[in-house]
Amino acid sequence: MSMQAEIAALAGEVKKASRVLATTGTAEKNRALRLMAAGLRQQRPFLQAENKRDLEAAAANGLPPAMIDRLTLSDQVIEAMAGGLEEVAAFPDPVGEVVKMWRRPNDLLVGKMRIPLGVIGMIYESRPNVTADAAGLCLKAGNGVILRGGSEAIHSNLAVMKVLHEALAQTAVPAAVVQVVPYTDRQAITEMLKLEEDIDLIIPRGGEGLIRFVVENSRIPVIKHYKGVCHVFVDEDADFAMAEKIVINAKTQRPGVCNALETLLVHRQAAPAFLPPMVAALQRAGVEVRGCEQSRGLVPGLTAATEEDWHAEYLSLVLAVRVVAGLDQAIDHINTYGSDHTEAIITRDYQRAQEFLRRVNSSVVMVNASTRFSDGGQMGLGAEIGISTTKLHAYGPMGLEGLTTTKFIIYGSGQVRD
Amino acid sequence: MSMQAEIAALAGEVKKASRVLATTGTAEKNRALRLMAAGLRQQRPFLQAENKRDLEAAAANGLPPAMIDRLTLSDQVIEAMAGGLEEVAAFPDPVGEVVKMWRRPNDLLVGKMRIPLGVIGMIYESRPNVTADAAGLCLKAGNGVILRGGSEAIHSNLAVMKVLHEALAQTAVPAAVVQVVPYTDRQAITEMLKLEEDIDLIIPRGGEGLIRFVVENSRIPVIKHYKGVCHVFVDEDADFAMAEKIVINAKTQRPGVCNALETLLVHRQAAPAFLPPMVAALQRAGVEVRGCEQSRGLVPGLTAATEEDWHAEYLSLVLAVRVVAGLDQAIDHINTYGSDHTEAIITRDYQRAQEFLRRVNSSVVMVNASTRFSDGGQMGLGAEIGISTTKLHAYGPMGLEGLTTTKFIIYGSGQVRD
Repeated sequence: MSMQAEIAALAGEVKKASRVLATTGTAEKNRALRLMAAGLRQQRPFLQAENKRDLEAAAANGLPPAMIDRLTLSDQVIEAMAGGLEEVAAFPDPVGEVVKMWRRPNDLLVGKMRIPLGVIGMIYESRPNVTADAAGLCLKAGNGVILRGGSEAIHSNLAVMKVLHEALAQTAVPAAVVQVVPYTDRQAITEMLKLEEDIDLIIPRGGEGLIRFVVENSRIPVIKHYKGVCHVFVDEDADFAMAEKIVINAKTQRPGVCNALETLLVHRQAAPAFLPPMVAALQRAGVEVRGCEQSRGLVPGLTAATEEDWHAEYLSLVLAVRVVAGLDQAIDHINTYGSDHTEAIITRDYQRAQEFLRRVNSSVVMVNASTRFSDGGQMGLGAEIGISTTKLHAYGPMGLEGLTTTKFIIYGSGQVRD
Repeated sequence: MSMQAEIAALAGEVKKASRVLATTGTAEKNRALRLMAAGLRQQRPFLQAENKRDLEAAAANGLPPAMIDRLTLSDQVIEAMAGGLEEVAAFPDPVGEVVKMWRRPNDLLVGKMRIPLGVIGMIYESRPNVTADAAGLCLKAGNGVILRGGSEAIHSNLAVMKVLHEALAQTAVPAAVVQVVPYTDRQAITEMLKLEEDIDLIIPRGGEGLIRFVVENSRIPVIKHYKGVCHVFVDEDADFAMAEKIVINAKTQRPGVCNALETLLVHRQAAPAFLPPMVAALQRAGVEVRGCEQSRGLVPGLTAATEEDWHAEYLSLVLAVRVVAGLDQAIDHINTYGSDHTEAIITRDYQRAQEFLRRVNSSVVMVNASTRFSDGGQMGLGAEIGISTTKLHAYGPMGLEGLTTTKFIIYGSGQVRD
């Protein structure tokens, strides 16, 4: 069988199995998740032996230490995978919820019921723990999943899948709901992205290059985010102490993640009193600050920010700062340079707080809180399979509910149309 | 400017204008819709003069009468366009609705607020009334829209746009929220489908060939349905009189539309008593019935249904009939041959009604009602911009709410992350 035919057959199997899973009861899905967790713990020696093959190849290929670290199935990583599956088992099942229902003049009762999306295609790099995490979330939401990880993790991914399949074999959930594509070249991705009859949604996770490749080649809708250029706007009426605490947290608590702060916007009325001590506090925390002309007038010695800085997702201890004329200019800046990820306003003014929430259409918009809360777990969505800045059914952190859609249901009593 | 650059510039303008529209108040949007309606009525002579250019070209090119009929902007069609815009003005505005809100243990208040999708790309054929209908629905939901109609309707589409622009010029809504692509070759579609930065969603309306072309070439998510192979399953416990009335309505009330019945499934316990009079009633209504082997045993003289018939969307007075062993086989048949559009069960049995609703994941699933109710207007969604069998934020008939998504909003009081 050609690679193309083999991948198509795999996706067809997943689709068939997903139909059984879609109507499997919550208790049985949870039992499956707990057996999967137990299997990962029990099969740790096997997982680590297979992982070792990937690690040896990685060392031979001279992969950087950070990548080797992400690739390693340590005791802790395996325990986290197992614990994650048990957590997902404890979440409420989104499938079958009737989100609303209304009566028509002819007495038809029309409603919307939450259902699985069907089959999810995950395309990702390095981390083999994604294999178990994604499988668990997809399974709980009633979806089949076809996983295409990177070549550097192929033995680990196949080993994880084998353990999950052994666990599923003890349940009413068909093992084929989780499949790993055994091919790791780009052509395998291209083939997968053509299978619009069998795969409902593609979620790529990785570098911008991988994600752009997926978007350009997919016939299937793709949920993705390229980057997180998050903004905090400090309004003229902000509580400056609160603003400083939030800016430091948003920039420094974990600078390498997508919900970290990248550009600080400061109201020009607030700037003279707020900006000098704020910059000093940032510099004490090791942050390099790059400022617009007005900020450099207020805080001498700052590096000049260029157009490039407004677009930058630094993912490190660098921050761009711009003084703006007010709310309108702040929103214009966000619309021009933002990435639809997360923005916050710091203010004591009721009207401007509401206006910012209403007018900024990024996927997460907040008042008086750190952008670091833009996270499925922190927001109470349960877990998170990814973050979407694609404006579809899931926009923002995507948890179990983001892995479902709704169908219409209609209760009639013999109605026909005139 | 090259065609490519011109289409990209047009989409950029629509995106910019859509940002203003996204925060325009409901009253002003409704005033714009009413002025658009008034403009269409007042400019009827201009619209019909431009339409005549398309009609003359159509006649010269020998277009079939049905197509010329769809192309004609008669007095009635123009009045329907105007009336449609006034109806949309009367619908509730979906934008800004907070669909839920919950409190986190750290007192963050997290919610989901309905927002416009942004910019919609419509790709369609012949009917110039779609230009006004789509513009109205997109405007009400706060979206910009870039419209690419067929070459046969280009003068009519540009004329409608001109009238809408003149109306919008009297309002706070930027006229650029509605734009018609002035190029009608396929290359113009291909260029449009690359503009993922400026267009959020593509809705193609037309033949399967056009839709497949769009899916294969789009970097932007596409909401579509290829066809409607709708099923009615008559259960052993059905009220036969009700079942007969519903089958006749679903098949014959308007056979050329996507929610018309195409395959009738009959429980084998019901078949001997139900099928012969049902087929007789269908034949009296002018329907050609094609049956499986079992049905032909019960009703001699039926044409034999082949594998092709189970896949067929006849869109005419032909019906495929199959006797099935029960609910499981009916659902298997629907999963194998269905199009995720609309399916109904006719039964008096409580348990099987609920099971059918739960287990069939087509976009509309009904009990004891005609499939012809699968329609945005009939279901109370207001109007309908299309029907989606793509499992995304809109699955099934797509009205104003289907033209929106939700962002997360967070009310904090200075929270930072540990």
